[in-house]
Formats: sequence, C-alpha cells, structure tokens
Amino acid sequence: MLKRSPLAPTDFPFLPTVDGVRVAGLSTGLKKGKKRDLFVADLQAGTTIAGKFTSSQCPSAPVDWCRQVIRRGKARTIIVNSGNANAFTGKAGDQTVAETIKAAVRHFDCRKAEVFLASTGVIGEPLPPKAIGERLPGAVKALTPNGWSDAADAIRTTDTFSKGACIETEIAGSPVRIVGIAKGSGMIAPDMATMLSFIFTDAKIPAPTLQKLLDYGTDRSFNSITVDSDTSTSDTVLLAATGAASHKSVSGPAQAHLRHFRQALTDLMIDLATQVVRDGEGATKFITIDVTGAASARAAKRIGLAIANSPLVKTAIAGEDANWGRIVMAIGKAGEKADRDKLSIAMGGIPITKNGRLIDAYREAPIARHLKEQSVTIEVDVGVGAGKARVWTCDLTHDYISINADYRS
Amino acid sequence: MLKRSPLAPTDFPFLPTVDGVRVAGLSTGLKKGKKRDLFVADLQAGTTIAGKFTSSQCPSAPVDWCRQVIRRGKARTIIVNSGNANAFTGKAGDQTVAETIKAAVRHFDCRKAEVFLASTGVIGEPLPPKAIGERLPGAVKALTPNGWSDAADAIRTTDTFSKGACIETEIAGSPVRIVGIAKGSGMIAPDMATMLSFIFTDAKIPAPTLQKLLDYGTDRSFNSITVDSDTSTSDTVLLAATGAASHKSVSGPAQAHLRHFRQALTDLMIDLATQVVRDGEGATKFITIDVTGAASARAAKRIGLAIANSPLVKTAIAGEDANWGRIVMAIGKAGEKADRDKLSIAMGGIPITKNGRLIDAYREAPIARHLKEQSVTIEVDVGVGAGKARVWTCDLTHDYISINADYRS
Repeated sequence: MLKRSPLAPTDFPFLPTVDGVRVAGLSTGLKKGKKRDLFVADLQAGTTIAGKFTSSQCPSAPVDWCRQVIRRGKARTIIVNSGNANAFTGKAGDQTVAETIKAAVRHFDCRKAEVFLASTGVIGEPLPPKAIGERLPGAVKALTPNGWSDAADAIRTTDTFSKGACIETEIAGSPVRIVGIAKGSGMIAPDMATMLSFIFTDAKIPAPTLQKLLDYGTDRSFNSITVDSDTSTSDTVLLAATGAASHKSVSGPAQAHLRHFRQALTDLMIDLATQVVRDGEGATKFITIDVTGAASARAAKRIGLAIANSPLVKTAIAGEDANWGRIVMAIGKAGEKADRDKLSIAMGGIPITKNGRLIDAYREAPIARHLKEQSVTIEVDVGVGAGKARVWTCDLTHDYISINADYRS
Repeated sequence: MLKRSPLAPTDFPFLPTVDGVRVAGLSTGLKKGKKRDLFVADLQAGTTIAGKFTSSQCPSAPVDWCRQVIRRGKARTIIVNSGNANAFTGKAGDQTVAETIKAAVRHFDCRKAEVFLASTGVIGEPLPPKAIGERLPGAVKALTPNGWSDAADAIRTTDTFSKGACIETEIAGSPVRIVGIAKGSGMIAPDMATMLSFIFTDAKIPAPTLQKLLDYGTDRSFNSITVDSDTSTSDTVLLAATGAASHKSVSGPAQAHLRHFRQALTDLMIDLATQVVRDGEGATKFITIDVTGAASARAAKRIGLAIANSPLVKTAIAGEDANWGRIVMAIGKAGEKADRDKLSIAMGGIPITKNGRLIDAYREAPIARHLKEQSVTIEVDVGVGAGKARVWTCDLTHDYISINADYRS
C-alpha cells in the first residue's frame, strides 16, 4: 500500500449532482481484496459526448471501440473497470469489449454506439469475455446521483488519492454545472500510467461543439502535464452533456455565450490534471513551468515539456538544487527556436539570467529558499516571439525508482 | 569521488601511435586537486578534419567556433579543457575562445581556422580569457606520440573511467590506423552530460569525404546511444586525418576501397559510444535494443530510442523485472507506425510476444534469468516494413537519483 502523496489535497471535494447523471463505483472482485474496481455512469437519453484518446500506436481494446463510435456523439452509459487494462490482449480483448457492450445494451436499453468503455490496470493479461457484463446488474442497482466519491475511487489503480472537481458556470445567463473525476499517477503492478477522466455537465451542447470545447480544454490541461514522459495505451477523456439544464440553445463553440463555459471547463480540467501531477509517483515537488517569448504557442509548449521531462531538471529540483544550467540545457534540446543570447530564466519569480548570462546581482540563497517549498515555479523567456504556454510536472525522486524498479524484487 | 562503473572495462586499452599526431594530457590547475584538465593534439601540416556538433539551440562558445570553421576542413591543433564548459557565458565566452585561438596560432604557427576547441564542465561560469592560452606552452612541451592515456584522462569530468579505442584497417590494400578517445557519462558538478570524442587516423582523405564518413559513423554510434535523453550544449566529435599513411589517393566516400575503412571507423565509434553508455550515471545494466520490421531505418531508430529513453523500461530492467508491457507502451508512444497485432517482443533472444499477444508457452523464469546478467538485450519487430536499427542505453537506478539530486545536499 502506497502512502498518500505529500502533495495530495486534504480531502476529496464535495461534488454536487448533475441532472441526468447517475453513477456507481463498487467492489466486484476484479481486483484483489475489497477495493472498488467498477465504475458505471448512467446518462439520460439525449446526452451528447466528446472524447480524446491516447496517441499510442498500441491502444487498448476499449480505446479502439470508443474511437470507432465517438463521432456519433451520443452516449447512454460509460463503463470502466480497474485492475486489468484489456490492452495487448489481441482478439480476446475485442471479444470482451463486444460482450460488455451486449450486456450494456440490454441493461440501458440503448444502442451499441451509445456505450463507452475504458479499462485500466495490468496489460497483456486476458480479461474474461463476460467479466464486466456479468457484473453490470449489481452496478446498475447501485446507481445514484451522489455516487462521485465511490466512482472516483473505483477507477484508481496506483493512485494514492481519489481525484474530483466541480465548477458552476453559465450559458447565456442560465446556470450550468460541470463535475469531473480522474485517475492517473503511477505504474507499479499495472504496467503503465493510465490517465482517465470522465466529465459530466447538464449543459445542452451538440456533440461537434462539445468536441471542440474538449479539444480546447485538453490541450491546456491533460496535454500540458507530464510525470515521466511515458504514454499509456489507455488514456481516455470523455465529456458528457446531458442537456438537462435549461438555457438558450447553442450551436458553434465560437459563440459568445459559450466563452464562460469553455473557460470553466478548462479550469476544471486543469484542476483534475494538476491533481494527477500531484499524485505523480514519488513526487515531493509540484512544478509549474511558464514559457514566454517562443515562436508560437506550440513551440512554447514543446520547450516547457522538454524542461518538464528532463530527468536532470527533475532530479535537481528533488534535491532542492538551484542548478539552472540544466534548464538552459533542456531549452537547448527542445528543438524549438530560442535565442541563447536573449534567454531569461527565473525560479519562483526571482531572476537568474538575463540576455543569455547570469545577472550581476545573482545570489543563490533566495532561489534555494524557494526550492524548499512544495510548489516550485520556473519562468523562461526564450526571446524570439510572442508564443507562450504553461505546463506542470513533478520532481524525480528515489521513490520513483523504488516504485518502478524495486516493486517485484 | 565516484566509484568505477560496474560496467567498465578492466583497463584502458593500449593505443598505438598515429603518424602525424602528438598529444598531451596534463594537470594545469583548471580543476581542483591534481586532476588532468587540458588536452592538446598537434596535427601535422596538411591534416584534414571533419566534425559533428550538438543539436542544442544553446551551444557553447567553442561549438560556435568549430561550426564556423569546420567547412574549411583543415586542422593543426585540437585544444580541450575540462572543468568549465564555457557555455552560457555570453560575450565573455567568445572572448576566451578568441584569446585561446590567438595563443594557438602563435604556438602552432598555423591559421585561426586550423584551431579546434572544446570545453566541458560547469556551465554559466566565466572562463577567464587567457586561462587556456597561458597554459598552452606547458602543454606543447608535453606533446608525445604516446600520450593517449593522459589525453583520455584529461577530458574526463564525472566519467568513472577513461575511454579509448583503436583499430587497424586498410585503404586499397595499404594499412591505416584509427585511434579515438571519448568522454561522457554524467552531470554532477558539471551541469550536464557532455559527450566529446576525438578520433585520429593516418589515412589521407579529403575533408568532404572525411565528413561523409564521420556522418555515417556518428549516425550508427554516438547518435544511437542515450543515457537519460538529455542533450549537452557541448557535444563534439572531431575526426582528423593526417595523411601520413601511404595509400592510393581517395576522392569520394562511395569508392570501393573506402568500404573497409568506413566500417572500421564505424566499429571504433561504436566501441567508444558504448563505453559512454557503460559509464552512464548509476548504470548497472548495459542494454542493447534491436528494432526490426519498421517503416524505415529512421523509424526503427526512433522506436529504439523511445524504448531506451523510457524511465519505466529502464527502471524495470534495473529491478530485473520482466515487465514487457512497458516495452509495448514505449513502442506505442514513439509516434512511428507499428502494427499492434503483429508485434513481436523478445528479451535475450527469448520470445515473449508474437502477433500482438503473449506466446502460449511463455514462462517468465528464462527472461528473469537473462535480466540478472549485466548485458541485457531487447528485440522488437513492429511488423510493418523492413527498417531496422540498433541502439544502446543503460538502466535507471537509485544511484542516478543520488548523483543528480543529492549531490549538493
């Protein structure tokens, strides 16, 4: 049993109901012991859905399925098991997906394309075809509008805490609500960091618009974090909109009355994404990296991720070492334009370099003090343009090695 | 003082003289204590040279200089200091380069463009303008055709052993000789892994041809290794050909009588490059990864490096854990075409998966036995084409964290 991350929030937040959504998270024996391992969401008829999936060339069977039906844009249920990723399981994996869908169609009286699935856990181990389907009746009985805490618990694998967030916003003056849960952290007994998030709103938004909103938010949240640069076979983010709220109907994402909603959704996704970082394996420092002055936003993000993924930067911060030369190195290797002789670097807002060299008044003590804090910031201006980006990561510690190397020894 | 890598060879190899080359490696007080810190090579008139340099956008001042003059293709001296990288030192860094060149021109009676420089060590710390120049006279006095061991020692920073290799080959039936030294490993007091290599031959090869031979070799050696995915500001490989050997004159790299030489050079570079991997910080396992069946050689290499750079793969091997699911994950994230349902994975030549799933007769014990060895191999066929590549790396251990996080604490 892993100890709770030192960067974890004190408690799981209170999450309100979302009209048109009922959820359950329960223990069904898929995992050893009494751990919760099955999450089911029941979505009212007419719910629209959008999704983002792993870029892995070796995706899991459930990801294959979701990709196939996401364009239809309709959902009645989301079914997620933890403990077995149903990845790299060949034709047997597809059969398990088919059997689960068949059972879901029966229980939710819906069409196949309205069933969304995700699995997280060990890969390469077959998941018996009827394993999920035969557990559905129990889960259906447990559905409740208030089941968030159990739901967030049921999708955990090596997460040291459950992750959830909510936000109230408005569309055209009418209140709407967004609630989300997420999992992601580590990869001990399961073989990789699986990142899953399920987000629900009572807003009434057509699927293509919903997809654009999700793309926007994902780019600024889940696609702006890294723990160790490894990409799971199972990454899935689903956003379901039940349409139960009463507000003016919306069509395109550019519409002014969706501006608030889009920002609220993005904020909620950043909240969930940074919770994943806070649960990064072995993490003792939460690191925010701001890159400005890049050739484009995309270039800024690549530079930010190069810093965030550098083992040398991450170990220096773990050691509370003001080793800013490693930041220079990481910027240099990002493959994006940077003007060495205009480079400005700061940590905790305290300037270190200006115009490509150490500032005259540089003293290490204030930086060292900042590095003793749990939240560390790195600010970089690469001096070539107006592109900017923010990314988040955690440090790289002995516990990361222990968790990932020593687990079975 | 770091303990010698467990993967190090027993001794520094005997390296023969190369006609037209004299070298010195001595202690001049640039580094603390009595450590050697200055390497100088004297090359006879008419020596041609080729070079490869870091892809960093923030290169050191000496790299800037070498890039500027390498196209001229002539060299009379190579001067290298360790202890200070002269990187991220602004205009002061360029001034130090200029002063060093001025002194070299005087001592070697040559042109500026025939002077090649490299520096390795701490970055961001000014190197006084005359620091190297005023040490040159002493170094010049120490020049000898037999100074390889001292030379290889003088370019070390955190390397736990000196790296050298030699090979005898022929051009058009006449014997020629190649000798090389290298450094690279770690990044403790210096801020990053600097990779340097200097290779000398008595062959007579025009500079453009020499450059093509070096490109070919680098691609298959130094550009096929990774310790921790971080790229130095100072990476430099120089290949000097004195022309002292008597053989038929050569013009283009495609010529049949250069085939042997090209292979010998590549073999020597692979020898040096894998010595760098064997000195990877904290390394306890030497890992060779063969990728076949990729869309192209380039794609195969990217897949190989994705596996080699994955912290999850590296920690699993450190823990002697047959966690092949992480190899699937790394292949999936490489961004290159791979057919999940045709994927074959083996370790130590023992098949694990075929056609995208675990082989029926799979038993973990033989894999576990292979993982207990110091040299581990991973064989992957991604099932889409004929592209193949071999890359080398080491494992990721607690010592890597200790070296890089705990150094100053």
